[in-house]
Amino acid sequence: MGTDGVGRHEIARRIRTIADFPKPGIQFRDITTLILDPEGLRLAVDGMVGAVQGPIDLVAGIEARGFVFAPAVALALGAGVVLIRKDGKLPGATIAEDYALEYGTDRIAIHADACTPGARVLLVDDLIATGGTARAAVRLLRKAGATVEQACFAIDLPDLGGADALRADGITVSALVAFPGH
Amino acid sequence: MGTDGVGRHEIARRIRTIADFPKPGIQFRDITTLILDPEGLRLAVDGMVGAVQGPIDLVAGIEARGFVFAPAVALALGAGVVLIRKDGKLPGATIAEDYALEYGTDRIAIHADACTPGARVLLVDDLIATGGTARAAVRLLRKAGATVEQACFAIDLPDLGGADALRADGITVSALVAFPGH
Repeated sequence: MGTDGVGRHEIARRIRTIADFPKPGIQFRDITTLILDPEGLRLAVDGMVGAVQGPIDLVAGIEARGFVFAPAVALALGAGVVLIRKDGKLPGATIAEDYALEYGTDRIAIHADACTPGARVLLVDDLIATGGTARAAVRLLRKAGATVEQACFAIDLPDLGGADALRADGITVSALVAFPGH
Repeated sequence: MGTDGVGRHEIARRIRTIADFPKPGIQFRDITTLILDPEGLRLAVDGMVGAVQGPIDLVAGIEARGFVFAPAVALALGAGVVLIRKDGKLPGATIAEDYALEYGTDRIAIHADACTPGARVLLVDDLIATGGTARAAVRLLRKAGATVEQACFAIDLPDLGGADALRADGITVSALVAFPGH
């Protein structure tokens, strides 16, 4: 069971919108005000946990705001945590995956031994927009041998198409709140 | 109550040591193997929570590995979360604090409205070494009006003096495990 209408409202009203960050024209959806409030934090984590279907072995959080939610969700599920970091940040042997940015590419990595083959991994991040990072994370986890079928986000910007693209990759996507029009 | 001897052993044995990261001569203490294991994650969060004395309003996590522990600790304490980020990453109005690196300086920031005056803040990070970042975080939170009297870390490298320096700043410091000699 995911977040109900009241829960969604209680979460959405704690998310602050900041105009023109990180650049002009972008309405930045800021989760820091959500988690600053103990009730907001609890609603967010409970909402993510409630949307999960079936057993999960590992919760993968994407640097840096995904780290805020992944461990709390993992604790509730009795799962472990995989950190998906920007390339060069992890100390051990890694496997990496590139993804396209507006200009150029970026690269994320996980420890090569982070996923046992067939581990059921839930992907977690604060927000899904175009889905470039999330889709690269799914490719990366699958390359590592994981079974990735679910992803949850605090915020979906549906008009940017990332959630639909993830669904086309075979992922069940949930979000606590959606901001159409972004 | 903090982590007992058995708990410390169970945590310490899940922390991987990687030689020569991020540069030659450094023995990197890697918490990714601790949190990859559901039991390790639970022991770490329970240990941090168990070391806290008295009521806490906010748990402040330092980017990026502090984000892994702060929200789970906050949930258990019924507190909110403050993100201490590298300068330029937070979308709203911030206050910042500089600290010295081996060569040059770095800067961390929090949202200017993150701490109500007198809020009792617990500082959380994965590791304390020389304490440069943690001490800057305490100065920053105090500048914002917070009452900061406690800090907890997964790992203390006591020979590098950071925990003692924090204590001299009036902070009660706890760590799940210590690696003397580092």
